[in-house]
Amino acid sequence: MHFASDNAGPAHPKVIEALVAANEGHAMPYGADAAMDRVRVRIREIFEAPEAAVYLVATGTAANALLLATMGQPWETVFCADVAHVEWDECGAPEFYGGGTKLTLVPTVAAKMTPGALAERIGQTAHKVVHGVQRGPVTLTQITERGTLYSLDEIAGLTEVARAHGLPVHMDGARFANAMTALGCSAAEMTSRRGVDTLSFGGTKNGLLGVEAAVMFDPAAAWEFELRRKRAAHLFSKHRYLSAQMEAYLTDGLWLEMAAAANAACARLADGLRGLPGVRIDYPVDANMIYAAWPRAAHARLRAAGAAYYMMGAPDGPEDEVVPARLVCDWTASAADTDRFLDLLRG
Amino acid sequence: MHFASDNAGPAHPKVIEALVAANEGHAMPYGADAAMDRVRVRIREIFEAPEAAVYLVATGTAANALLLATMGQPWETVFCADVAHVEWDECGAPEFYGGGTKLTLVPTVAAKMTPGALAERIGQTAHKVVHGVQRGPVTLTQITERGTLYSLDEIAGLTEVARAHGLPVHMDGARFANAMTALGCSAAEMTSRRGVDTLSFGGTKNGLLGVEAAVMFDPAAAWEFELRRKRAAHLFSKHRYLSAQMEAYLTDGLWLEMAAAANAACARLADGLRGLPGVRIDYPVDANMIYAAWPRAAHARLRAAGAAYYMMGAPDGPEDEVVPARLVCDWTASAADTDRFLDLLRG
Amino acid sequence: MHFASDNAGPAHPKVIEALVAANEGHAMPYGADAAMDRVRVRIREIFEAPEAAVYLVATGTAANALLLATMGQPWETVFCADVAHVEWDECGAPEFYGGGTKLTLVPTVAAKMTPGALAERIGQTAHKVVHGVQRGPVTLTQITERGTLYSLDEIAGLTEVARAHGLPVHMDGARFANAMTALGCSAAEMTSRRGVDTLSFGGTKNGLLGVEAAVMFDPAAAWEFELRRKRAAHLFSKHRYLSAQMEAYLTDGLWLEMAAAANAACARLADGLRGLPGVRIDYPVDANMIYAAWPRAAHARLRAAGAAYYMMGAPDGPEDEVVPARLVCDWTASAADTDRFLDLLRG
Amino acid sequence: MHFASDNAGPAHPKVIEALVAANEGHAMPYGADAAMDRVRVRIREIFEAPEAAVYLVATGTAANALLLATMGQPWETVFCADVAHVEWDECGAPEFYGGGTKLTLVPTVAAKMTPGALAERIGQTAHKVVHGVQRGPVTLTQITERGTLYSLDEIAGLTEVARAHGLPVHMDGARFANAMTALGCSAAEMTSRRGVDTLSFGGTKNGLLGVEAAVMFDPAAAWEFELRRKRAAHLFSKHRYLSAQMEAYLTDGLWLEMAAAANAACARLADGLRGLPGVRIDYPVDANMIYAAWPRAAHARLRAAGAAYYMMGAPDGPEDEVVPARLVCDWTASAADTDRFLDLLRG
Repeated sequence: MHFASDNAGPAHPKVIEALVAANEGHAMPYGADAAMDRVRVRIREIFEAPEAAVYLVATGTAANALLLATMGQPWETVFCADVAHVEWDECGAPEFYGGGTKLTLVPTVAAKMTPGALAERIGQTAHKVVHGVQRGPVTLTQITERGTLYSLDEIAGLTEVARAHGLPVHMDGARFANAMTALGCSAAEMTSRRGVDTLSFGGTKNGLLGVEAAVMFDPAAAWEFELRRKRAAHLFSKHRYLSAQMEAYLTDGLWLEMAAAANAACARLADGLRGLPGVRIDYPVDANMIYAAWPRAAHARLRAAGAAYYMMGAPDGPEDEVVPARLVCDWTASAADTDRFLDLLRG
Repeated sequence: MHFASDNAGPAHPKVIEALVAANEGHAMPYGADAAMDRVRVRIREIFEAPEAAVYLVATGTAANALLLATMGQPWETVFCADVAHVEWDECGAPEFYGGGTKLTLVPTVAAKMTPGALAERIGQTAHKVVHGVQRGPVTLTQITERGTLYSLDEIAGLTEVARAHGLPVHMDGARFANAMTALGCSAAEMTSRRGVDTLSFGGTKNGLLGVEAAVMFDPAAAWEFELRRKRAAHLFSKHRYLSAQMEAYLTDGLWLEMAAAANAACARLADGLRGLPGVRIDYPVDANMIYAAWPRAAHARLRAAGAAYYMMGAPDGPEDEVVPARLVCDWTASAADTDRFLDLLRG
Repeated sequence: MHFASDNAGPAHPKVIEALVAANEGHAMPYGADAAMDRVRVRIREIFEAPEAAVYLVATGTAANALLLATMGQPWETVFCADVAHVEWDECGAPEFYGGGTKLTLVPTVAAKMTPGALAERIGQTAHKVVHGVQRGPVTLTQITERGTLYSLDEIAGLTEVARAHGLPVHMDGARFANAMTALGCSAAEMTSRRGVDTLSFGGTKNGLLGVEAAVMFDPAAAWEFELRRKRAAHLFSKHRYLSAQMEAYLTDGLWLEMAAAANAACARLADGLRGLPGVRIDYPVDANMIYAAWPRAAHARLRAAGAAYYMMGAPDGPEDEVVPARLVCDWTASAADTDRFLDLLRG
Repeated sequence: MHFASDNAGPAHPKVIEALVAANEGHAMPYGADAAMDRVRVRIREIFEAPEAAVYLVATGTAANALLLATMGQPWETVFCADVAHVEWDECGAPEFYGGGTKLTLVPTVAAKMTPGALAERIGQTAHKVVHGVQRGPVTLTQITERGTLYSLDEIAGLTEVARAHGLPVHMDGARFANAMTALGCSAAEMTSRRGVDTLSFGGTKNGLLGVEAAVMFDPAAAWEFELRRKRAAHLFSKHRYLSAQMEAYLTDGLWLEMAAAANAACARLADGLRGLPGVRIDYPVDANMIYAAWPRAAHARLRAAGAAYYMMGAPDGPEDEVVPARLVCDWTASAADTDRFLDLLRG
């Protein structure tokens, strides 16, 4: 019953196998390994972007911060959702990497920016007037930080607003595979074909040890990105171990298989929660993350039984007070786990 | 015959085994895993520093840049050797992490700073006068970037100069185990007992996949380091995979075993080179790295036979021109490799 | 009828006289001039802060950004009003000077933060959790960017919240003299005695050519400030011309005399506006700045007659549409000016 | 006998007059004043650069740091003389403004870089290899920090090397008028026609209160410069006072008149020094600055008589020990001053 985060679970055995296999003999360092060439080809295929620049880093924050810095200027502001990971969970990495860039928070509905709200915030930001920070990149998280999903039309709606103002668009795809699986679309449909310019393509939360791809569909800034990555100490000498993970991930659909498993477990859990008296679902459950709430007494039962998840409130207090929680399913979440969780909650 | 770099070789099988073993079930993310607790205890023991702050990152540049930034101020300059990795091979990471800090190059003898040269450069730097950058941390690399070794007395000589000016000292120990093995001293003798304040304790070049420990013998700035690491995107969510590597490294002396193997191969290679006519040794060979030179014709033979190493000069040119090279042995270097290399060179 | 801004008017003749007088012979550069010593003594007296560190710079943004950077860390966020100058009108200077610091916007009532809103935002910000930016300095603008005034109790209310969280407080006093005059209090009562730690003490908007004092009531960080100022290129070699302005400003109450004139003209203007049909006052008029609105036809009359002020809306459109405006009085604003303005508005 | 620095003397009376005249009525702030338009036109004429972008700031360090930041990237290094003001006297301003840029010191002869030394340092710097910082702008100081002068051919020699590597060239012209006067050439001949791309055009050291022009002969990066200037808090609201100074400076050749006076006094001083036994001249005296040395006893006499200059050595010690000094003449230096100085030195 591990629902604390999809970064707490193990890597897939096939990924470990790939790592073991990669540990043969010597390999060119710093991304010049042969596996990286194959990964680059594969990612270009998946995104139908034959010219795309593709780089690997080990953390999602690195991918986000490096891409945003490359897309903007220090005197610009990044437009992001008011619940965005870049705002709340990266300790100011975008500001640091960007040389003092700002983030402008766009109000959200169900954790999603709307085109109207984005346009309004852009409109309130300086443009060709020297006193304020200037308009910079737009970033959206898919799936969002509350587990909701932008539809393809919603993505297009946001990128159209950005495009109308000449602003590039980044997608934080820490849970990209979960989103794609949920939408049933192709990777390109969710990104390059909807006006997204750059992507943090997550692997760590979906069964890898620690690899994300930074993808720029237009490779014009590729060399700048390489310098920024090196300068930020995110260029790995023994790069083959990153390549091997990503190659395994993209082989035989392993990435989608793991995402499907996580999403399925999450749907089962959400279905069960919906049927329980006293349980409130706080956000649409679109992929592998649930925001819900139930009485403290049930929390106590669950935690006593070893269930792991985020409880947003004090463990002590009135038994019948409804306390919110976050549950995330990773690729290892089983039906047995979800059902036991539901049983405990039911009491 | 792979002598290009110790970052091109494989990880030790025991490290891979540890990684596989670490891939069981769920673990607390972001450094809260149990293995990290054990690693911390072990490193404190090794360095006889019961209070030391210990953190893991994945690249040596990250360890160096984060430690130096934590030790200094943006308006200070870091004193380093004129051949230092921080100056030549990190694309300005110390400047970036430090918020625009400088590096002041100290002249070297055999790639080593002398106390006199260090004192002179410190003396030339502003102190309590607002117009120039101020004096900041001193960093020394052990073994140096040319494969030479500071003796314990030489280390003490430098740290005394630093201490006399109130400056903290960092050691870039990317090849720490090789140095310690060569000196036959303990880890503490080479660092904490000789006035070194912080250490980049390398693992990647010595048989790990990609892990370095950043160690601060005085933990006063530990929390600042944690914030800097997170903000720089070097805090791993699935941290257990870093911990597992480092734990295996420090178990049953694996780290020293690998360093000893690399050093032994290197000594064998150096001995062979010394006996060859037309071969020049450019720096004392103190650990696992050789700077030497020989005629281009011999380079051609070696490279044709698949020997991998850095040749500092054009492949084409007069056959008898003496062209320098760098050879580095990793833990996998065998006597057979070195002997075949020497045979080829001999012609 | 110049109400566009208090930075568009001339300097006071006594200030010019002081400048002329200062232009005799040679003087020690970089702030070591004798006049600066007198200024320092005078400011310490005024603020009843015998140990205060006092520095002069030429722009208000420099004073704000240097003080905030000195008070915080790159990984912290500055809490400011949602209408703050530091957020909207400094092109990211606090972020740049702070090494990538953030600004967190606190909702306001009449352009003023409330203790409750400040406490809430502080509470939402990371504290000893590494994932988010940490809590940093609080800054408040007196008078505010909308011309309203914090009472002494309101200032104390905010600084108490800050103190309770261990956060230092900065006051952006670009219009400090106007505020002090309006409140009828002493300089110390509005700052050091109410828990304010540092102050941008404005002169430029109140009759100087371009001088602001950066004051730190606790001088512990004085040397750091000096280094930051120099490094930011805000240490003037011919510093005596800054000192002379500030000395004249503080002599015989010139600063308060000018502020009183500006406030009086503004009050007269506001009184007149209040009596006019079709005119709406948008914020309490507490010092020398008015936010009001009236029909476009009246705007057209005023502007045709040469009245200078900010009109927040298109010059063309329905004649009876009410369009907002900002009026600021400087020390030269005369009763004749205000009355003529009101006559024109009246039609 | 004030030879400490040309930044210790008064402003020219005509400059003060212009300041007084500028203090009439209201003026548009932030560089939109009419006088700035005239200054821009005039500077473009002087430099025969009809498209040049021209901005005013108040300190030479601001001009240097803003221009260099605009010309380069954070991961590049600026090539400068080993005695450069940017390296020694700006407390790291170029590094701060540039987002962590480096400075690479080029060895000098008579404080001047040679094309060969510049080419060598450029050659040693990374180019399209990600591990090192990349090649960035070249900056030269005219007159140099030791009072020597680049000939027009020497300037061209350096800019050719830069051009051959695709690098832009900045001139630190803190004493531009002194250099131009000494060379007897036009402003364009010393800059735009010799391959210089940007210029810090000094006024402060030559009779202004505090104004420098930042000039970019190619205006492509003008908007970026404006944003950087604002963000660095160097955009003055009451900008007219900067414009007025610069306008007076460039009217009726005042700038060249003042430089000629300073140079003449310096030549008289140098001639006198050359004729004195026991006096050593350390650098060619090409404009208004002298590096010389004489016995301590003579220093004692001079200082006792109130002569102001930099003595590079302890005031106490053997009477006959030769101790170096720096003398700088500003526009007020008189023949009487120099002669009295020489008399005292003569003893």
